[in-house]
Amino acid sequence: MRFKRSERIVYMTQYLMNHPNELVPLTFFVQKFRQAKSSISEDVQIIRDTFQKEGLGVVKTVAGASGGVMYKPEMGKEEAREVIEEVIELLQEKDRLLPGGYLFLSDLMGNPTLLNKIGKLIATLYAEEDLDAVVTIATKGISLANAVASALNLPVVVIRKDNKVTEGSTVSINYVSGSSRKIETMVLSKRTLPEGSNVLVVDDFMRAGGSINGVMNLMNEFKATVKGVSVLVESKEVKQRLIEDYTSLVRLSDVDEYNQEFTVEKGNSLDKFSQKER
Amino acid sequence: MRFKRSERIVYMTQYLMNHPNELVPLTFFVQKFRQAKSSISEDVQIIRDTFQKEGLGVVKTVAGASGGVMYKPEMGKEEAREVIEEVIELLQEKDRLLPGGYLFLSDLMGNPTLLNKIGKLIATLYAEEDLDAVVTIATKGISLANAVASALNLPVVVIRKDNKVTEGSTVSINYVSGSSRKIETMVLSKRTLPEGSNVLVVDDFMRAGGSINGVMNLMNEFKATVKGVSVLVESKEVKQRLIEDYTSLVRLSDVDEYNQEFTVEKGNSLDKFSQKER
Repeated sequence: MRFKRSERIVYMTQYLMNHPNELVPLTFFVQKFRQAKSSISEDVQIIRDTFQKEGLGVVKTVAGASGGVMYKPEMGKEEAREVIEEVIELLQEKDRLLPGGYLFLSDLMGNPTLLNKIGKLIATLYAEEDLDAVVTIATKGISLANAVASALNLPVVVIRKDNKVTEGSTVSINYVSGSSRKIETMVLSKRTLPEGSNVLVVDDFMRAGGSINGVMNLMNEFKATVKGVSVLVESKEVKQRLIEDYTSLVRLSDVDEYNQEFTVEKGNSLDKFSQKER
Repeated sequence: MRFKRSERIVYMTQYLMNHPNELVPLTFFVQKFRQAKSSISEDVQIIRDTFQKEGLGVVKTVAGASGGVMYKPEMGKEEAREVIEEVIELLQEKDRLLPGGYLFLSDLMGNPTLLNKIGKLIATLYAEEDLDAVVTIATKGISLANAVASALNLPVVVIRKDNKVTEGSTVSINYVSGSSRKIETMVLSKRTLPEGSNVLVVDDFMRAGGSINGVMNLMNEFKATVKGVSVLVESKEVKQRLIEDYTSLVRLSDVDEYNQEFTVEKGNSLDKFSQKER
């Protein structure tokens, strides 16, 4: 079966998109299409140039015997700004403020199209880190972590607040919830995270950072290095933040529960894009 | 800026893949590329034919003024068989059996590449249903539901077993867990699921079906119609199954906890593919 260039390009584009952050040897396509390596290289160049021109992510080519082509789902600053504005608009909808100054986020966390965009944004921020896993806390962080991990082609590790038989042997720590000052427990299945991993911590909402501080302690038990912390929403009104180095998509402030009023503005993620693009 | 056919094809392929199950009007591409509709139609045809020839999913064209092109991420029977065999192989690894006859699944549920394939498989089974949402139960079902919903371009609705302030107003039901015969509670945030929705229920593990039966009752409260139930693993050794109509990827049997032995075989999902292809 012979393939025309246009057909090869359709196939290769979809293949790269389905295998993000994976180095695909050119010989894979050479064998698939029974075509000279030079033609395949030209195909790759067309794909790379179009992705670059249209800001669709990075198609990297690595030369040499162990070389190949890799698609990194990265996002440009303009698109990141649009995603953040979309999130701000959604969060400003009526009746989103819950008792205790929480925001209702379950609908956002259940929207795969939006999550894929947010995942790509966060993946871009940490694309240069040598990560082994994306770590999150059950329940609401899971969908966000999936989206980030999917763009980075990494496993997701879910920390739970209860100990279930389905987790096998676990390591647990106690921590003080930053907001309620209550002592809570976090549990992680031993076999889900190899010792010494580099991890990115992702969650939907951060107030004082008690939960994420708990994650840090639990990561210590696994001898893991936390290479970054990223949250969808951070609450600005915190007396003492337990976590210093993190990125947030948006920032919540001026919460007035009585009148159901609050402000949502962009977080520090966009600044990171500026640094990236200099 | 002029675009060559090969560049247009790269862009259109990635665009369709990023917008599954969404009808994209041809005029969108006509305007983007400033190209005659006839050329764009030819581009679409090349993409459609390549996807079909290579079993990459369905690219549907809808003629007429409100027409356009739509990518449906469907899977052929052969690929489905490979995915199921991959799952069986992973599940047969040592030390996967947990006390009580459960299987350790957290690593599979944290593997985005595998989940995307499983999600596409389950999406294919229910592609013809007129679905509004994918419903699952926290915690481990969430990643699987995300993968299915991403392929179907649908929202995910997460039922919890605890009532959290972050869910807003909720509806809850009590149900009897099929295995432990304990009474448990299920909670769903009112605003995550509009009344009268058509839903697909997805979960990672089903034994007697008590949880899923609970989901059915909760769906009644939301006047929802359950169009299908799909699980990754079903346990075969059940005296009385509470759910009759479901699909499973794999089936667990001959569980011998003492010797850490069990059998995993393919579930009934593959038979459904046979019916589809006839």
